[in-house]
Amino acid sequence: MHINDHYLKLKAGYLFPEIGRRVSKFAAENPSAKIIRLGIGDVTEPLPPAITEAMHKAVDDMARRESFRGYGPEQGYDFLREAIAKHDFQSRGANVAADEIFVSDGSKCDSGNILDIFGLDNVVAVTDPVYPVYVDTNVMAGRTGPADDAGRYAGLVYIPVTAENNFTPALPDRHVDIIYLCYPNNPTGTVAAKETLKQWVDYARREDAVIFFDAAYEAYITDPAIPHSIYEIDGARECAIEFRSFSKTAGFTGTRCAFTVVPKSLTGKAADGNRVELHALWTRRHTTKFNGVSYVVQRGAEAVYSLEGQKQVRQTIAFYLENARILCAGLRDAGLTVYGGVNAPYVWLKTPRQMTSWEFFDHLLSTAHLVGTPGSGFGASGEGYFRLSAFNSRSNIEEAVQRVKALGFSQEGR
Amino acid sequence: MHINDHYLKLKAGYLFPEIGRRVSKFAAENPSAKIIRLGIGDVTEPLPPAITEAMHKAVDDMARRESFRGYGPEQGYDFLREAIAKHDFQSRGANVAADEIFVSDGSKCDSGNILDIFGLDNVVAVTDPVYPVYVDTNVMAGRTGPADDAGRYAGLVYIPVTAENNFTPALPDRHVDIIYLCYPNNPTGTVAAKETLKQWVDYARREDAVIFFDAAYEAYITDPAIPHSIYEIDGARECAIEFRSFSKTAGFTGTRCAFTVVPKSLTGKAADGNRVELHALWTRRHTTKFNGVSYVVQRGAEAVYSLEGQKQVRQTIAFYLENARILCAGLRDAGLTVYGGVNAPYVWLKTPRQMTSWEFFDHLLSTAHLVGTPGSGFGASGEGYFRLSAFNSRSNIEEAVQRVKALGFSQEGR
Repeated sequence: MHINDHYLKLKAGYLFPEIGRRVSKFAAENPSAKIIRLGIGDVTEPLPPAITEAMHKAVDDMARRESFRGYGPEQGYDFLREAIAKHDFQSRGANVAADEIFVSDGSKCDSGNILDIFGLDNVVAVTDPVYPVYVDTNVMAGRTGPADDAGRYAGLVYIPVTAENNFTPALPDRHVDIIYLCYPNNPTGTVAAKETLKQWVDYARREDAVIFFDAAYEAYITDPAIPHSIYEIDGARECAIEFRSFSKTAGFTGTRCAFTVVPKSLTGKAADGNRVELHALWTRRHTTKFNGVSYVVQRGAEAVYSLEGQKQVRQTIAFYLENARILCAGLRDAGLTVYGGVNAPYVWLKTPRQMTSWEFFDHLLSTAHLVGTPGSGFGASGEGYFRLSAFNSRSNIEEAVQRVKALGFSQEGR
Repeated sequence: MHINDHYLKLKAGYLFPEIGRRVSKFAAENPSAKIIRLGIGDVTEPLPPAITEAMHKAVDDMARRESFRGYGPEQGYDFLREAIAKHDFQSRGANVAADEIFVSDGSKCDSGNILDIFGLDNVVAVTDPVYPVYVDTNVMAGRTGPADDAGRYAGLVYIPVTAENNFTPALPDRHVDIIYLCYPNNPTGTVAAKETLKQWVDYARREDAVIFFDAAYEAYITDPAIPHSIYEIDGARECAIEFRSFSKTAGFTGTRCAFTVVPKSLTGKAADGNRVELHALWTRRHTTKFNGVSYVVQRGAEAVYSLEGQKQVRQTIAFYLENARILCAGLRDAGLTVYGGVNAPYVWLKTPRQMTSWEFFDHLLSTAHLVGTPGSGFGASGEGYFRLSAFNSRSNIEEAVQRVKALGFSQEGR
């Protein structure tokens, strides 16, 4: 039997395993170093009480024959889909119905799996830097050629987002079929103004393209002018699929719940020229290759929308955002140039002294015992940048700032 | 943008939605009918106490900062992988290591997703009748042509398993690359002897094929001579991937946990002729497109292997098996010819009076208010057969038997 040869095009290590390898090596050689990890974007605060109470109750449901739940609807229970539609969309004036919401076990999974319903001949555009999963899943599916030395795959359209263009992606100067946008952005922590999103929606409708809008970090938006959902933009129901997650909103990285919105008004072209509803195709994919999210987890997710749940979840997000504020301010004091961190839990900084991203990674690890993520791991245009995450305890964030200040970048200039 | 046109080859309705539609229609027209559902294979007994206690404890872990868990390893926590390797494989003399086990949220998902790591040019063989997901996921991926009137897709190799060959699939008379085997079998409830599996392993090794061995129902094996795992067969580590699930073993259909075994000694051929470890490819797929199973659920699954958990889980399985025994005996008394139901929770019967599978479905629904699954829904060779599930309360099973007896098939012959 033959393997899928496209896998052999993938670069050797996914970014985070390589970071893990270097950190393990350093820790083994420096057992007394107190390493602070601001690398991978994983939450650290516990699940709030409203959520764990709901999960306890759901476990009790599973322990009694009368309330036991076997297979649920693959798309999620109505109690959760309705809460999502109401609170996350309709309350913001975005026209999304409960039956357009597909509950899943993760946005990473969804953003990869969604590709199944699209032809292999579509031209794919990603921003650069970008969340690596968007690229890797297209490589695996065979939508790209091999990678060059900078890590750019042939056949993909890369749209740079750097300080030079104020992290605002320019529309492509050619036709593309699939566009990935992530706002608030991972890795840069920047956001998109309504006008920017409107330009993309107009482009997609003009070109019959689809936008994959990853809004996993929407709960971190503090600026009231910034849209939380692509469906706040006129015309998005005709061209966009949105990915959302409870991971960063409610601390579900280890609990696993997310959802994807596929509007019923969204269609794609079949080989015979007919238009086909993507909602129907995704329903077929989701019901055939997925069996629904754990009932206990869905009850936990439902509790995110209760009055108490909302209050508790907002508190945790405020805590992480204050971490981000402290990080930004401290790094600026230390002489670094810093982006993001206001409407997102990520801080994106320019590496000092012309260091490459990986040089700065090694420097920060060896001198300050801090772990971050090299910008070049997110794409060629991320070279010379570095990501720090605000997911940590307050004392670790403060300690991290002190350690960076002690490195004294301000004296030496950049 | 273009859709994946292969989806348009899929037949209109997946089997179970069509059943649901007919049952809903009948129920609406006959509101007083007490319908007993023995159709879809979904468990009915609650989670045993050892499992719900472990889940409560895990929810408490998530409520405290010190014991909170964020992202876990995508492949599953070691505590679970080690318990699985020890109890499900090593204790039976099957050589499977913990790091060859990939914990997932479902066998349905895994049996579809595994196709990602194989080339599109592989020739796929399925038994007929067969679990529809094996076929549909290959259609969606583009490994077949269109379906004929009997529902057989061009390009797939169908291997009949019927009463005529004692439900034992003959080796194909041509080369195939991928072979799906499911034992104990869904839908027929029959099992494979060690010698049968050995023939398939030898065939696969000779032909450089891979066997996808679906053992989701292994916990129902009562005959000590029947293998529980393909890895009890010499040579299987070089040619087989095994799918297992907690769904039917421990009542996890709504809790969601399963696992897949990919031995490190299993390789496939790349286009350049080199051999590539499938374990490495699946690791890349699993870590890129999946983010691990909920911590709370994994703790529940771990408890399946505790002393108390084992005792409680065995009790529930014995209960379902006694249901199956009552069903088999009662249907035989009613004059029907019955297969399976001894090492499996499914009873497979020959439809009486030359009825087609769907005719018998409608007859049973309208006259006895019983829901089963038409054999033809599982493939052309399932025509003239019918599946009943033993997952129900004892009183419903006994009532179902009485209702079938009242239909009086014995007097009229077949």
